[in-house]
Amino acid sequence: MDIRFKVWLEKGGEVVVGNGKVGLLKMIADLGSIQKAADNLGMSYRHAWGMIQKIEKRSGIKFVETQVGGREGGGAQLTPPGQEFLKQYFSFREGLNESIEKKFKAKFKK
Amino acid sequence: MDIRFKVWLEKGGEVVVGNGKVGLLKMIADLGSIQKAADNLGMSYRHAWGMIQKIEKRSGIKFVETQVGGREGGGAQLTPPGQEFLKQYFSFREGLNESIEKKFKAKFKK
Repeated sequence: MDIRFKVWLEKGGEVVVGNGKVGLLKMIADLGSIQKAADNLGMSYRHAWGMIQKIEKRSGIKFVETQVGGREGGGAQLTPPGQEFLKQYFSFREGLNESIEKKFKAKFKK
Repeated sequence: MDIRFKVWLEKGGEVVVGNGKVGLLKMIADLGSIQKAADNLGMSYRHAWGMIQKIEKRSGIKFVETQVGGREGGGAQLTPPGQEFLKQYFSFREGLNESIEKKFKAKFKK
């Protein structure tokens, strides 16, 4: 048998981020564009934008800033607090899979 | 912000048990009756029975044995492999909340 798990953050009982939203933020940070990030995740721009609005509203943190116009038709990047949030989140997530897996294998002999 | 998480077991890509099914098994073990366990969890006998069938089919382990008749109208108990499974599962789960919470607080300063 295999162990599976899922983690997410809540504030005031509302989900702020789980794997999906964190993935979107990371993709925006890497690609510098909400549109490209949405394309890569197989979602519409509208859906991605809605996710960002929810994260920002629920966390009280401004995550994404956009630039309008220019040759590339604008772009997007994470704000410094947004970058810091992701950094801390990944630092927390790093090694968590292995640690849970290890604990499971030590205790569960089926 | 608060960290939340969920763990479950899979076999061949199918969910065998999560918190709900483990809770039902524990309740049956404690109360000695599927009916009483179902009542305590606010579910129908039929639903509880269906859950047990799924756990047994997916895990390949016989978990619950029932006795028909008698003054109390029969009863149910966990089989030895079922008891062993629960014991190992709780041993794995014990302290997991605290350990994830601790890791989160150490890394996540928001």
